[in-house]
Amino acid sequence: MAEKNKKKRRLVDPDSSITDDRELPFKSSLQPDSAILQSLESLLSSTSSSSSTKPLSLSDLSLSSSCREVAELPLSSVQSTVESVILELAQSILSGRGFSFSVPSRSAGNQLYVPELDRIVLKDKSSIRPFAHVSSVRKSTITVRIMSLIHQLCLKNIHVTKRDLFYTDVKLFQDQTQSDAVLDDVSCILGCTRSSLNVIAAEKGVVVGRLIFSDNGDMIDCTKMGMGGKAIPPNIDRVGDMKSDALFILLVEKDAAYMRLAEDRFYNRFPCIIVTAKGQPDVATRLFLRKMKMELKLPVLALVDSDPYGLKILSVYGCGSKNMSYDSANLTTPDIKWLGIRPSDLDKYKIPEQCRLQMTEQDIKTGKDMLEEDFVKKNPGWVEELNLMVKTKQKAEIQALSSFGFQYLSEVYLPLKLQQQDWL
Amino acid sequence: MAEKNKKKRRLVDPDSSITDDRELPFKSSLQPDSAILQSLESLLSSTSSSSSTKPLSLSDLSLSSSCREVAELPLSSVQSTVESVILELAQSILSGRGFSFSVPSRSAGNQLYVPELDRIVLKDKSSIRPFAHVSSVRKSTITVRIMSLIHQLCLKNIHVTKRDLFYTDVKLFQDQTQSDAVLDDVSCILGCTRSSLNVIAAEKGVVVGRLIFSDNGDMIDCTKMGMGGKAIPPNIDRVGDMKSDALFILLVEKDAAYMRLAEDRFYNRFPCIIVTAKGQPDVATRLFLRKMKMELKLPVLALVDSDPYGLKILSVYGCGSKNMSYDSANLTTPDIKWLGIRPSDLDKYKIPEQCRLQMTEQDIKTGKDMLEEDFVKKNPGWVEELNLMVKTKQKAEIQALSSFGFQYLSEVYLPLKLQQQDWL
Repeated sequence: MAEKNKKKRRLVDPDSSITDDRELPFKSSLQPDSAILQSLESLLSSTSSSSSTKPLSLSDLSLSSSCREVAELPLSSVQSTVESVILELAQSILSGRGFSFSVPSRSAGNQLYVPELDRIVLKDKSSIRPFAHVSSVRKSTITVRIMSLIHQLCLKNIHVTKRDLFYTDVKLFQDQTQSDAVLDDVSCILGCTRSSLNVIAAEKGVVVGRLIFSDNGDMIDCTKMGMGGKAIPPNIDRVGDMKSDALFILLVEKDAAYMRLAEDRFYNRFPCIIVTAKGQPDVATRLFLRKMKMELKLPVLALVDSDPYGLKILSVYGCGSKNMSYDSANLTTPDIKWLGIRPSDLDKYKIPEQCRLQMTEQDIKTGKDMLEEDFVKKNPGWVEELNLMVKTKQKAEIQALSSFGFQYLSEVYLPLKLQQQDWL
Repeated sequence: MAEKNKKKRRLVDPDSSITDDRELPFKSSLQPDSAILQSLESLLSSTSSSSSTKPLSLSDLSLSSSCREVAELPLSSVQSTVESVILELAQSILSGRGFSFSVPSRSAGNQLYVPELDRIVLKDKSSIRPFAHVSSVRKSTITVRIMSLIHQLCLKNIHVTKRDLFYTDVKLFQDQTQSDAVLDDVSCILGCTRSSLNVIAAEKGVVVGRLIFSDNGDMIDCTKMGMGGKAIPPNIDRVGDMKSDALFILLVEKDAAYMRLAEDRFYNRFPCIIVTAKGQPDVATRLFLRKMKMELKLPVLALVDSDPYGLKILSVYGCGSKNMSYDSANLTTPDIKWLGIRPSDLDKYKIPEQCRLQMTEQDIKTGKDMLEEDFVKKNPGWVEELNLMVKTKQKAEIQALSSFGFQYLSEVYLPLKLQQQDWL
């Protein structure tokens, strides 16, 4: 048994960090924190100066007539927009022409990746949805009904979920996919984001670290949120007054890594804000990340698994999902840096073979598909990393770093990454 | 169109609540809040007087020799227990007898529901796991390894996830199910809860309302957590100093209902603490609920969907899951009241037919299985409700109340339930 343990200790042994830190790979390369902080300050100043130039918009690219975009509108504007749409319908009916909606198409053929904006946008194709036609009478009725419900939310100034909307008229909507789809149509018709409509999704994300903000009028200090952190509010329109002395935002894919960093209060050693959506990014977390980036002008560094899905998650934060491309301007956070775990880190940090996982056929296919995506192609460093992943057929989770000790992530890997400015 | 709308308005119309509250079912039955608060105060005083009598334990029932239970232990005790177990092994080896573990069995046959305790407990069957046997050499090696890792967590005083544990020695553990299973064994061998081992699960739950507590040293005021609420900490051992002026705890199954109540600040009208695990109860939320109930001596009222799974969720909070029965004393919250949505509410509150759902064959089977469960049988009111559900073959979500207006839940349904003390 003793012999067995000894053999294992040579391979991978977290115990060693208790007694002998010198054995931890790369621990000796670490400079004092003050030197690392200095390099982070230069990153911050370059980020905030580049963010202070107004971001490009569709009209800067002369695309505003051929592409469509929605805006974050105050509740009173949503209300008056609904009222003027309905007034138009009434006039159309009174003039004997009946009524119809012009509904922007959200099909795949109407999507466009704009490299200058680095996000997916919706082109300008629309279809007519007349009330007086057997194929569209139901859908136009649903459209009017959803508008009336949205108008009600404006008057009451409350938030509801898509499920709540559905239950207000099950007989008409029949199933929730129908009310959900029309809700997105109504967003496009009114030209405002879904969150402006006061329809919210379940919250999933948490935030901790050097951030103070107001949630529905309450001031929240995220350095005083213990290990659990603060749940990210579902309604971004009631989030405001963001203040921070952080040097960067650390976007973490997974819960476990988030908990490690929260417990170690990593944000006190390197002033930062730590945020995670616990897997797939949800709308509330995407809106919250963007708001932080825009208001605080902080660089965003992403810590994701070294597999195609980690990169996919990064891309949803960065350039949006096809499903909600009409709202990409509000949902996406520009210029996210890929900090780790990158495919090249596996050898660089000597991740033990047994902690790497073989990619499945499906993984490899997803990886190759990603190589064809515009947002990957425009970043040569990402292409190189992804090529390496597909070639070696190896992936690794953030947790694989635990093979060097539970706190290797917060004590060596991340500090060294920051010191070497090793992001892409 | 106007005619169509008018017709629908007669059926179900949330708009009506804006202009004419008298039409809302049962709104007129509501007494002033002061009267409702008075009845809640009497509930509170009866709960706190009954909770002040020490809860029954296995030894009170003379079951401590035939059943096994683990305890919440401080980190120093876990450390010394590991050390004494290992010392015993060493002595056994030195005396030439090799070593083996006596491991409590966690199989279904070793589980027992104890009606007096109203929870599932583990009986005393154990098996021997010798090192010097080909069938158990691997498992006993893993057991030693896990103990050594737990010992390390004690020394460092940090928390890790099961996934972190797995990655410290992938070569030995091979896959995570193996290290997970042995981790539960080690809990039983050491006689302490898994959370005492500093191994935590992902957090899912949120809490909002009249509660102040400390999370890892930070004081959290849950009345000042906006709409998002406070994420429930994954490590219950760093939660403390609970204070509250609430009259009850409202345990909510789903996110959407939680958000409605949080936005409406229901806890300010009826002083309460609102908590949800967003679906299936996770360990962190179960521990947190129990701690609130025990320290604050508040009654717990549950708001779940009217379907077999809603009742199942209630039962996991109340009497535990079979998988972790060895820890049921620490994970379960006694005496949870079933507030709603109950099968009899569907007719009583005139939930429209189109908002009710037909139960599937599987639903009905699950409902019938639940009728055989001891913890349901001991509550005649629950049996009656469940029989009604199975007979009518109808289920309904909490969200179905939105058919009377988005705020019907917080403005009429819950206040009336409280006023009528309508729980089982």
